[in-house]
Amino acid sequence: MGGDTGPAAVVAGCAQAAQENPGIGLILHGPAEELARLVAKRKGLAERCEIRDCDGVVTMDAKPSYVMRHGKGTSMWSAIDAVRAGEAQVCVSCGNTGALMAVSMLRLRKLEGINRPAIACLWPSRNPGGFNIMLDVGADIRADEDDLLQYALMGTSYARNGLGLVHPRIGLLNVGTEEHKGRAELKVANDLIGAAAHAGEFDYVGFVEGGDIPSDRVDVIITDGFTGNIALKTAEGTATLVRELLRKAFAATPFARIAALLAYTSLRRLGKRIDPRRVNGGVFLGLNGTVVKSHGSADATGISAAIGLASKLAQSNFSERLAARVASASLARQDDAQQGAVSGKQE
Amino acid sequence: MGGDTGPAAVVAGCAQAAQENPGIGLILHGPAEELARLVAKRKGLAERCEIRDCDGVVTMDAKPSYVMRHGKGTSMWSAIDAVRAGEAQVCVSCGNTGALMAVSMLRLRKLEGINRPAIACLWPSRNPGGFNIMLDVGADIRADEDDLLQYALMGTSYARNGLGLVHPRIGLLNVGTEEHKGRAELKVANDLIGAAAHAGEFDYVGFVEGGDIPSDRVDVIITDGFTGNIALKTAEGTATLVRELLRKAFAATPFARIAALLAYTSLRRLGKRIDPRRVNGGVFLGLNGTVVKSHGSADATGISAAIGLASKLAQSNFSERLAARVASASLARQDDAQQGAVSGKQE
Repeated sequence: MGGDTGPAAVVAGCAQAAQENPGIGLILHGPAEELARLVAKRKGLAERCEIRDCDGVVTMDAKPSYVMRHGKGTSMWSAIDAVRAGEAQVCVSCGNTGALMAVSMLRLRKLEGINRPAIACLWPSRNPGGFNIMLDVGADIRADEDDLLQYALMGTSYARNGLGLVHPRIGLLNVGTEEHKGRAELKVANDLIGAAAHAGEFDYVGFVEGGDIPSDRVDVIITDGFTGNIALKTAEGTATLVRELLRKAFAATPFARIAALLAYTSLRRLGKRIDPRRVNGGVFLGLNGTVVKSHGSADATGISAAIGLASKLAQSNFSERLAARVASASLARQDDAQQGAVSGKQE
Repeated sequence: MGGDTGPAAVVAGCAQAAQENPGIGLILHGPAEELARLVAKRKGLAERCEIRDCDGVVTMDAKPSYVMRHGKGTSMWSAIDAVRAGEAQVCVSCGNTGALMAVSMLRLRKLEGINRPAIACLWPSRNPGGFNIMLDVGADIRADEDDLLQYALMGTSYARNGLGLVHPRIGLLNVGTEEHKGRAELKVANDLIGAAAHAGEFDYVGFVEGGDIPSDRVDVIITDGFTGNIALKTAEGTATLVRELLRKAFAATPFARIAALLAYTSLRRLGKRIDPRRVNGGVFLGLNGTVVKSHGSADATGISAAIGLASKLAQSNFSERLAARVASASLARQDDAQQGAVSGKQE
């Protein structure tokens, strides 16, 4: 209910997702009458949907702390509680990110061993699979060296289960690749992540720069939520600008308009590849349960992509696998502490 | 001498810039014999060039603090000293950014009233002029609320003299546009910059997000050098990826290859608009003298663009105008302090 585009776009996205993912069922949370009317307009959707009546809406400008205290009875709260109760396997929301994370932490609780949960996104890249992973892209504006190490472990798990990479390559985002560059916590995290690579079964490639995010020398990019959010929105803004300019270029001359027709299929494929709506869906990592955050301004295509991602993660039992990985890493670190040294022999 | 592409690319860029800017003269700094040989290969360049012999080179991995102590005798030091001595109006370098800023601060000194100098870059945008300005994109990884206010004043001056905007619109980069979002220093800077808008003769549009950097609702984007550097390199990386994918799309089918020929002129114009090389040149703001930092990996086209920007700034007496603006803002703030209130009546 709290997205920028309103419930009509969400229901349209549900209809699209239901067609593309024949195995899924949906629980919609919001004013029952309004939702039932919207669902009835989409052929075959009513049979796949259950509606949970609730009146409250978390608005985009609501403070997370306020929603944590007074959010019971909102559609957001109800959707997260469906995961908590085991009725839903994944929660998908287009609402206020800060509030969604706050209520998720309150109701689902952080995984044992995790200090700050993170939001991971998929990023179009030159790698064979077509995507890299970046986290955190906006769960928390801060991250210290220990948080960044946990992000590396969680990112490894997401890359393995979401992208099928057995031994993902992890990079730490910085303003240069030289070891002396960047903030103090990045230098410490550089050492911590490097030392954890063997036991965590990932490759650590060291510092990477903004230009490396879509590159094929790394699979997972680790950063704090402030920087990650700016980078993500900057890249989306750049891709959108280029798409606009491209459209204008193909309308500029009669020759160009003919060219656009001839290259239609190729350009359409390219357009899909760089369309931010097709990679819509940030995954909250580090909670007892999976939450997928769709863009606030997502349209039906974007919402359908987020639901598709949720379905994929539910099928791979991602939540359980991530929890197991974090738990084993915590045990490994306890072993390290007892031995008084980081040796990487524990696994 | 210290760029990634070596002196041959720099001399090729000088030759291109000399052709495009008939009024300029060049002073090249480096090993005289090597440079003379490279210059002699370019027709008509020798008459426009003076060579200053120096053997030392600041490498890309040199620590700024080391270069400040031991950098005398390097080509970088020599080039900056030519500005200090008034022999050159602008210094252009493709070298190590941190070292260039450190030596510039040491030899040119900060402007009275400026705490942290900044690097400003031009950013392709939807505005009529085609560009927005962003600063800081990498002079310093930190910026507190007072630094961000100074960046707003310096960015205003650059927008006025560089882009011809009488009343530029200033935005502060954050992870959301709501006033309660972001880091503590950003909330304070939001108030400070808003209060300075009237006296500083700019419009303050408040917080902007990564997606707004190329937008037409703002002319100048203010941020710290860590975030700005990541955003800049992320946008360049995204534009480069899209260009690659576009090239592949036009080679994919015979129809697409014909289309590429038909749309050649339009696509070439688009390619120029989003080519990072064409907007090459970060300007150091806040020093007694102008320094233009070109990309380390700039080729002849990029180096020529940086020299062209330097020529434009020299012709507009930018250094003197910026100094006058910062001085009058400092006086205004002193008046404020004496009156015990920020009223904006001082100008």
